[in-house]
Amino acid sequence: MTTQQSSLGVVTPQSVHFETPLPLRSGASLRDYTLVFETYGTLNADRSNAVLVCHALNASHHVAGLHGDLTGQPIPRSEGWWDNMIGPGKPLDTDKFFVIGINNPGSCFGSTGPMHVNPDTGRIYGASFPVVTVEDWVDAQARVLDAMGIEQLAAVLGGSLGGMQALSWALQHPHRLRHCVAVATAPNLSAQNIAFNEVARRAIVTDPDFHGGHFYAHGVVPRRGLRVARMIGHITYLSDDVMDTKFGRELVGRELGEAPHYSTQEIEFQIESYLRYQGDKFSDYFDANTYLLITRALDYFDPARTFGGNLTAAMAQAVAKFLVISFTTDWRFSPARSHEIVKALLDNGLDVAYAEIDAPHGHDAFLLDDPRYMGVMRAYFDRIAAELPASTRTVIDATATEATP
Amino acid sequence: MTTQQSSLGVVTPQSVHFETPLPLRSGASLRDYTLVFETYGTLNADRSNAVLVCHALNASHHVAGLHGDLTGQPIPRSEGWWDNMIGPGKPLDTDKFFVIGINNPGSCFGSTGPMHVNPDTGRIYGASFPVVTVEDWVDAQARVLDAMGIEQLAAVLGGSLGGMQALSWALQHPHRLRHCVAVATAPNLSAQNIAFNEVARRAIVTDPDFHGGHFYAHGVVPRRGLRVARMIGHITYLSDDVMDTKFGRELVGRELGEAPHYSTQEIEFQIESYLRYQGDKFSDYFDANTYLLITRALDYFDPARTFGGNLTAAMAQAVAKFLVISFTTDWRFSPARSHEIVKALLDNGLDVAYAEIDAPHGHDAFLLDDPRYMGVMRAYFDRIAAELPASTRTVIDATATEATP
Repeated sequence: MTTQQSSLGVVTPQSVHFETPLPLRSGASLRDYTLVFETYGTLNADRSNAVLVCHALNASHHVAGLHGDLTGQPIPRSEGWWDNMIGPGKPLDTDKFFVIGINNPGSCFGSTGPMHVNPDTGRIYGASFPVVTVEDWVDAQARVLDAMGIEQLAAVLGGSLGGMQALSWALQHPHRLRHCVAVATAPNLSAQNIAFNEVARRAIVTDPDFHGGHFYAHGVVPRRGLRVARMIGHITYLSDDVMDTKFGRELVGRELGEAPHYSTQEIEFQIESYLRYQGDKFSDYFDANTYLLITRALDYFDPARTFGGNLTAAMAQAVAKFLVISFTTDWRFSPARSHEIVKALLDNGLDVAYAEIDAPHGHDAFLLDDPRYMGVMRAYFDRIAAELPASTRTVIDATATEATP
Repeated sequence: MTTQQSSLGVVTPQSVHFETPLPLRSGASLRDYTLVFETYGTLNADRSNAVLVCHALNASHHVAGLHGDLTGQPIPRSEGWWDNMIGPGKPLDTDKFFVIGINNPGSCFGSTGPMHVNPDTGRIYGASFPVVTVEDWVDAQARVLDAMGIEQLAAVLGGSLGGMQALSWALQHPHRLRHCVAVATAPNLSAQNIAFNEVARRAIVTDPDFHGGHFYAHGVVPRRGLRVARMIGHITYLSDDVMDTKFGRELVGRELGEAPHYSTQEIEFQIESYLRYQGDKFSDYFDANTYLLITRALDYFDPARTFGGNLTAAMAQAVAKFLVISFTTDWRFSPARSHEIVKALLDNGLDVAYAEIDAPHGHDAFLLDDPRYMGVMRAYFDRIAAELPASTRTVIDATATEATP
């Protein structure tokens, strides 16, 4: 992420409450729920400059800007997760676009999730929170846009699981977006992707502190499982090369070439120290049931499933223009997976731009500052901005968007 | 592995007890220990046809043949882990060679390990079993050969961690082997390799049933941790492609294209079922402390460490001839890692044959029946057999090898 001060300043999360139940793909429904969101920039007069940014596993509606403390002062290091990409003068320029981040239901960052009370039982959902899918999230996001009076988005943008939501927007609501920007994503998970998710889930579910997903009532958190889950995840986010460059075989408290301490349980290598730190940090704030729900949403995403596995047939529903981006060293969602998406779009005669960025960072590259990547994004959003009719560039009061349905 | 009946028939493990302490690289030593081994074929008159086979993480001295029940009848499906490679008429032909498999100290398959009594305390070692390295194992193996009266091996052979032992033989005891056959191995672990080991260890160590490594006294086993460790390991043994071919996105109890059950904790995908099964099976028989010890031996192996990271300088000690084999889809120890070994050997003007087998199975390929792989091994061992002086092909009584030191 960027280390510079966010140029958006302090942003305030908003929320919208829905009393109409949201039907889910599982057959269940979610009723009486709240979604938290943030917006950056200003909606123009004909409400045509809105860009929805979809979040991945460990992220939220807080896409850009800083959060404020009780006195309104910016909290240091509270930048949104894509603050390097989004803001005034940045590749997705909030001087031109009205950018929206929405926290998905089932998450643990404010929107209704497993740690909230189930209105049907009066008890905390826990493991009984209904299974949510990428398609369900898109439906939930569409309701927030309805509440804002936004009929058509200039673009939907997302990376990784967020990219899956962007693709799903193009299929579920083809006429509600003009552009779909899908970064470091895949048309579905491979068996290996599912396998990594499953190991992480087993680590959580078999932690005795998980209590079948009802750990809140026991005043504990399945930290051991969450730590292991995060460590596994982290390995898949980084390339082998970047791990070697950053950590190599360096020992903690030893010079290069020195003998190790010879211990099976104490930290020896820098990479161990790094992973344990990441795991500890994650277990402090992430909800275990949310981890299960979000990894399952990843597993289930497969728009080609109901088309006999034919992605071209699935993509026939789309009418948007597409930008697809992949990173050469991403072994979680490799360029080959993006090629599948691009091919299916081209098979349907759709307008597709594709960039394969030669970046060393693995999957995490989509959050980093590679200049070629940033350049592609900037050029593409400049193109979208140029399509906005000049007469509509007058902005309207953004507070007008705080309607309730 | 092969499904055909082993042609070696029933083999009986033997053991040798050592009262002279074995000094270890950690500074500790192992005293009053027993090593279990098996032999196949017959030692020739000048004891020049012995081949030592070194085992990897989840394997033992039981390299080939079948084990027998109390009546001497072969136990079905008890074939050794490399029975497809070793036996009469097989690539490593026991009609020509005297093959030896030795269980390394610290293992859980018979040789002295963490579940045995520490003679210094009269209590089970548990987590206090001393840290062992690849170099220590080679020293331990050398003592077994001393006891057998074998001064020089025709070859040392190993795959994965076994290949590291084979390489270390060539460096520690350069004149005690004529050939070194290192399959699917690496000159050290990458940061990513260490990372996977570390996550597996954390899963074990943080399992409440681990009890700091002294779980034997509590009558429990850290099964949850062992299961997760094995699941992680298994993912790294298989290629992404072979996982997709074998399991893909197939659901359990559903036709292709059907909707899933929508559950975060129940099995949905075939790959989940497979991994859980592998984890369960492993946790029934593998010792948690052994898992820590063996993964640490992997982490520590790095013959170039004391040569400023210069593998060529490290390999200067070798005089043996080498066969190095890698598999194209092995992402645990990729062909690039074997190239490093080959380059360092060639830099020293050594005799090296290298085969890169285009196999789809990932790291596991070294245990499977790829005909090109088998062909290379057969040709190489035929060459070694041809080097044996014809006059020495008279065999001596193998029971003469059961000396104690």
